[in-house]
Amino acid sequence: MAAEIVNPRSDSGTDEGARAEFFDPAFALHRGGKMAVQATVPLRGKDDLSLAYTPGVAKVCSAIAEQPELVYDYTWKSQVVAVVTDGSAVLGLGDIGPEASLPVMEGKAILFKQFGGVDAVPIALDCRDVDELIDTVARMAPSFGGINLEDISAPRCFEIERRLQERVDIPVFHDDQHGTAVVTLAALRNAARLTGRTLGELRAVISGAGAAGVAIARILVEAGIGDVAVCDRKGIVSGDRTDLTDVKRELAGFTNKAGLTGPLEVALDGADVFIGVSGGTVPEPAVAKMAENCLIFAMANPNPEIHPDVAHKYAAVVATGRSDFPNQINNVLAFPGIFAGALQVRASRITEGMKIAAAEALAAVVADELSADKVIPSPFDERVAPAVTAAVAAAARADGVARR
Amino acid sequence: MAAEIVNPRSDSGTDEGARAEFFDPAFALHRGGKMAVQATVPLRGKDDLSLAYTPGVAKVCSAIAEQPELVYDYTWKSQVVAVVTDGSAVLGLGDIGPEASLPVMEGKAILFKQFGGVDAVPIALDCRDVDELIDTVARMAPSFGGINLEDISAPRCFEIERRLQERVDIPVFHDDQHGTAVVTLAALRNAARLTGRTLGELRAVISGAGAAGVAIARILVEAGIGDVAVCDRKGIVSGDRTDLTDVKRELAGFTNKAGLTGPLEVALDGADVFIGVSGGTVPEPAVAKMAENCLIFAMANPNPEIHPDVAHKYAAVVATGRSDFPNQINNVLAFPGIFAGALQVRASRITEGMKIAAAEALAAVVADELSADKVIPSPFDERVAPAVTAAVAAAARADGVARR
Repeated sequence: MAAEIVNPRSDSGTDEGARAEFFDPAFALHRGGKMAVQATVPLRGKDDLSLAYTPGVAKVCSAIAEQPELVYDYTWKSQVVAVVTDGSAVLGLGDIGPEASLPVMEGKAILFKQFGGVDAVPIALDCRDVDELIDTVARMAPSFGGINLEDISAPRCFEIERRLQERVDIPVFHDDQHGTAVVTLAALRNAARLTGRTLGELRAVISGAGAAGVAIARILVEAGIGDVAVCDRKGIVSGDRTDLTDVKRELAGFTNKAGLTGPLEVALDGADVFIGVSGGTVPEPAVAKMAENCLIFAMANPNPEIHPDVAHKYAAVVATGRSDFPNQINNVLAFPGIFAGALQVRASRITEGMKIAAAEALAAVVADELSADKVIPSPFDERVAPAVTAAVAAAARADGVARR
Repeated sequence: MAAEIVNPRSDSGTDEGARAEFFDPAFALHRGGKMAVQATVPLRGKDDLSLAYTPGVAKVCSAIAEQPELVYDYTWKSQVVAVVTDGSAVLGLGDIGPEASLPVMEGKAILFKQFGGVDAVPIALDCRDVDELIDTVARMAPSFGGINLEDISAPRCFEIERRLQERVDIPVFHDDQHGTAVVTLAALRNAARLTGRTLGELRAVISGAGAAGVAIARILVEAGIGDVAVCDRKGIVSGDRTDLTDVKRELAGFTNKAGLTGPLEVALDGADVFIGVSGGTVPEPAVAKMAENCLIFAMANPNPEIHPDVAHKYAAVVATGRSDFPNQINNVLAFPGIFAGALQVRASRITEGMKIAAAEALAAVVADELSADKVIPSPFDERVAPAVTAAVAAAARADGVARR
């Protein structure tokens, strides 16, 4: 149902709900949820039923039992993704639990449909143990063509994604990591091009070593960045630190070739790129020390680590996570097309090659219109999803993970 | 997508699939699956997105975190059911596993929507251990307003349903048990009325002690049947047998007041009602020994235990599970309305009272048109779901399991 005018004295829903809606259109829009299921076959009479259900359905079931890959031909597995969370790291709200995370998962599901033509089902799990979470999602896997992990806290999210992907033969993709990483890489490629440089000439600094920070570091290295240093709350992640988690120790191994140590400010001195996924604030004097023509992607929401007004004093290109400034780094530019491409070829996983292909396709969409205020397309640019879908499908075939 | 004309040389799907479709319209109809997801809110631009997704969604999440019952107001939990199976007892096909069961689960899901207006999601689990299955479904429960268990083998299905309902605060309903039981009770009430008797005057025999047989025995006793004997492959379930499972021992405790022992034929001698949910065949001489004006519900598919032509020689009313004979005992008469009613009042479970109310409402739909060929309405009778929904919602309130 569409958003409705809500009468606060209406007896539908709770009084509290009605009161909230009266003051806020977001509540009114959410009443009754944001999605529905629909049949795509006719069910008008006995004959329809005897094809779509018993007895006709039995033949289809038997055929799949004999030849399991037919499940892709004859069920919606070929086009449906589970959007799975445990509610442990939802937006900027933190650990709010499965029920309270559902509006985000529904939102994600309808973005999948709207932007990628992919059906998606929100699954918020009452489950925090890593082993149990992996078991639970692995057991559900037969019903889906892919698993989009969402808003699961770090560092659990890394282990969950890796071990789950080892268990199942459909793509597992933690969007908070890779969606952000793909869009960041696309924007950075274009920003480098605009300022006449290659990725290999750039030294980047990432503030934040959570899901997004780690994945961005990985994809930048994979894509050939000159150097990248990642900073957490205690400063630059480097091999000499004794307080690192497994994931950060791994990070120290393949980032920070310069061997920097100390606080974020040290890393920023002379850096070409700032990528903020931390939610903190970077003081202006530290920004002022960055290299000429620097690129600032301050992506924290709602408050960018460096306000665009400050960033523009020093940077050639400024991007944020907000829709009210130019160059919004928005995951919706990536995940619908990535899954649409993976589903199209019935991929068993999403490789690094598929992610990089997605970033390149995304960057290429704005090739002719490239400017400091447009290093990345708008989420509503209709060329985006088809371009990403095609690139990802081709990369899946090239990487040998496509079933067709 | 709707059923399409399939070109066997088309390169969509597998060659095997295309060949099968060429010969069978059921395959053509199933191509690509039978369902889809749709957004029910607008997503046309930045402003829509900022309400349905970030930042607007955050307020809704926070409200639910503070006041958990708001999840029913602001997500589709209030209207969505999981159709869960492990693929262990699918239709007459047996244990074909989760993937091969998906077409049935999808079919069930779209019947929920078509007949009850209930959204439903097929979840076929790769999981056979009873404890693991219960854990898995319990963890998914926050995302759904109800759980419809489907095609899970007996006797596991009894324990799974019972223990799962103890764990979660939404209705758990094994349709192979209770859907069948509700429709059978409705038809039997009308058949008794048509032949001038009350349920208390009838002695019934059930052939089959699986999911459906056990649940029918329970609801008939609950509804006041005179006596009922249940037969499994070894004969009448009675207290003196030493080979009974827990469930059948329990059954022996509250059925068969007459204390009959021996084969099905013994039970049928003078019986008023035969209810077949076994798939075997009852020899005509045994049928001939039933009481005058007897009622024969031979519900095995596709081959009724007693063919209607034979049954009509002896019985006042004949019902089957088939759509090509009168009086089809079809679960679709019950489950959509039962869940619609339960969801309407946000019930925490489905009580015996709600099931009996559903049966009575269903029986009442044909009150004025009652005849030997119409003891139960057609699945396409549009009065059915609203009548069942209203009766179930009222019974949930009366039984104290409604949240509103």
